[in-house]
Amino acid sequence: MGFAHYKVILSYNGTAFAGFQRQLNERTVQGEFEASLRQMGWTGDSILAAGRTDTGVHARGQVVSFSLEWNHPASDLVKALNYYLPQDMAVREASEVPPDFHPRYDAKCRRYCYNLICQPERDPLREVFAWRVWPAVEMERMNSAAADLIGSHDFKAFGRAMTESGVTVREVFSARWQGFDDAWQFEIAANAFLYHMVRRITLALVKIGQGEASETLIAESLKSGELPLTGMAPAAGLVLEEVCYA
Amino acid sequence: MGFAHYKVILSYNGTAFAGFQRQLNERTVQGEFEASLRQMGWTGDSILAAGRTDTGVHARGQVVSFSLEWNHPASDLVKALNYYLPQDMAVREASEVPPDFHPRYDAKCRRYCYNLICQPERDPLREVFAWRVWPAVEMERMNSAAADLIGSHDFKAFGRAMTESGVTVREVFSARWQGFDDAWQFEIAANAFLYHMVRRITLALVKIGQGEASETLIAESLKSGELPLTGMAPAAGLVLEEVCYA
Repeated sequence: MGFAHYKVILSYNGTAFAGFQRQLNERTVQGEFEASLRQMGWTGDSILAAGRTDTGVHARGQVVSFSLEWNHPASDLVKALNYYLPQDMAVREASEVPPDFHPRYDAKCRRYCYNLICQPERDPLREVFAWRVWPAVEMERMNSAAADLIGSHDFKAFGRAMTESGVTVREVFSARWQGFDDAWQFEIAANAFLYHMVRRITLALVKIGQGEASETLIAESLKSGELPLTGMAPAAGLVLEEVCYA
Repeated sequence: MGFAHYKVILSYNGTAFAGFQRQLNERTVQGEFEASLRQMGWTGDSILAAGRTDTGVHARGQVVSFSLEWNHPASDLVKALNYYLPQDMAVREASEVPPDFHPRYDAKCRRYCYNLICQPERDPLREVFAWRVWPAVEMERMNSAAADLIGSHDFKAFGRAMTESGVTVREVFSARWQGFDDAWQFEIAANAFLYHMVRRITLALVKIGQGEASETLIAESLKSGELPLTGMAPAAGLVLEEVCYA
């Protein structure tokens, strides 16, 4: 009640956003969220966020925080924000947090999912939230290689650091493909991720699954610090599912 | 081979189209498809289609036909068309048909699916292809009422005829809800449908499922020729799944 600090869990369809971070003359998640907050009397400079998703990347569990004068329960904040937010984003939960809460620095774990479909021809309904690849992948090869990601490693082969320290060591807690038929989902959780890391890893695993790269590619790249592949898996298949704090 | 008549099964994400039928200064499915065909040397006036889906309605099984000079196998027509078509539409199958084939008049059955999710707050990722409703629906009430649709009835309470004859009798072959947890799908098949019929029926069934309308609403409306509800279920939840010819 009164002036307080709030943590909000945010969901969005990344398709029509130029990424998370506010930019002049671009429609961004941060820009739209702050515009809605202002309608509710917010006068801050900038919200804080757990992570800055790229253009086209989706989220079900982005976390943002801000201070606001709000004289109703936090649950009513969900309804009020969802009234102002555009249709392609929505608040799932809101709670009051201590003033020193920081959605990025306090996060203990991030979990992403990458959606893959295997079929020869294009599929406009499924490709909104998935990457279509052909030939089909061999799941056992992909999971065998994905297991090499688990643990503390220097991931510089798979992305660059977003902080000034430049440290590229991260701890991957889990990395596994699941699914059936022609629809597969890669779930990966880590203490933090480098820029483009999930999409670079996904590309490598798909090449392994299609037999175009060796099953030892992940292990070798972690050792050498170089991934012999250019590009990355498309943004549309990626969802930031959860950020956890305990 | 040479100049022949082709039947094509078409899939599209209806979100960014002003419906199927070609219109001046609007992006439509027919307009985009004909533009792609022209790139391949087509000089016809208009393609034929099984049905004209409304603005925002999706398809996995729309059927169109046209005549084209094509000196390769029909399977290559799929690849060629998909090369020219925009990302939110794609050809699934192509086959040569007799010159008198008509995708609308020859169709024996149309099958639609309507996707529903039940949760209190907005969900930008799931609402691209579903209607979110709250309070939750009772599936048994909806299926009990849906069973009243099956058979030959005058459906004038649920839509208007698109043909000059004005006949509003249609035969519904099957009508059933399936799903689990908070995600439900209504599948309905009939010899043909009136304009807005699936979305008007879905609205009625959801009101029945939420307890806002009596379980006998469908049967009463078929008898009286009037549905005491305005509006219809949103377009985003509806998919034209299949048109069959035998």
